[in-house]
Amino acid sequence: MITVLRIGHRPERDKRITTHVSLVARAFRADKILVDTSDRELEANFNGVNDRFGNGVILETGISWRKVLKEWEGTIVHLTMYGMELEEAVASIKAIQDNNDILVVVGAEKVPGDVYKIADFNVSVGNQPHSEVAALAIFLDRIFEGRALRNFEGKMKIIPSNEGKKVVEE
Amino acid sequence: MITVLRIGHRPERDKRITTHVSLVARAFRADKILVDTSDRELEANFNGVNDRFGNGVILETGISWRKVLKEWEGTIVHLTMYGMELEEAVASIKAIQDNNDILVVVGAEKVPGDVYKIADFNVSVGNQPHSEVAALAIFLDRIFEGRALRNFEGKMKIIPSNEGKKVVEE
Repeated sequence: MITVLRIGHRPERDKRITTHVSLVARAFRADKILVDTSDRELEANFNGVNDRFGNGVILETGISWRKVLKEWEGTIVHLTMYGMELEEAVASIKAIQDNNDILVVVGAEKVPGDVYKIADFNVSVGNQPHSEVAALAIFLDRIFEGRALRNFEGKMKIIPSNEGKKVVEE
Repeated sequence: MITVLRIGHRPERDKRITTHVSLVARAFRADKILVDTSDRELEANFNGVNDRFGNGVILETGISWRKVLKEWEGTIVHLTMYGMELEEAVASIKAIQDNNDILVVVGAEKVPGDVYKIADFNVSVGNQPHSEVAALAIFLDRIFEGRALRNFEGKMKIIPSNEGKKVVEE
């Protein structure tokens, strides 16, 4: 089980980035997405995608991230450009026995210092500033060894094509 | 040489997503980023990162995307969730001889139909809705066989660490 925890979400400012983070978590095989700040519009957008393209991933907003971190019983991974190198971290994470519940913490701009301390692994997807959306995708892709991308059974199904849009609707 | 072309950029609405697209292009080994709509603030943000973390990637805004597509002499790849499967596309792209100049087109919400036609490859990073930021990162990661992430020589250098922030400033 992989849960993604988005912290520092500001609905006015971060709506689109947090939507991208959530949809990446969904498409790249996470099971659950937790967002600290309550955001009904984000939930509605996300559930709209689930409704059209297939269910199976849960998004909850308005949760206490401190409580989630404190009570987490599995491995906590914090994605940050200051973290240890990706390949080394992924090897260590995979080497953990009984590693059934990974929490992946994805911060917005400022992440409180105690997140670095409580995380088992602070992991960087490169040590250059870029994007938490890309960092999450690459991390999940490495964890699932290039097989993270997921298919869903939904009302809408896209047929891969080099020509243009081919969509099957139920 | 890899150039990323961002089309449909609306400065008020897409500033942060286009910033993420641009920084991902920079960090994942693209050489140049072209953005259709003129956006001085985006340029200033991007050049600020170059200035602090190391130069070597150029971002230009206010370019005619139709002209760029029309005059491009190398391979044109359009990232879209309707496209052909990633692994198949990457194998075909790599098989092209003299493949020195790849243009990667990354659209915002609506992409005009002629982009699908002019592209040599319409490529999907999964056929689920998620994020053009993640799609670009995964595509470049596959093109560079997992070695896309780039180091730069800049005034600021982050030292990878599992403990917290270690930054060396010149």
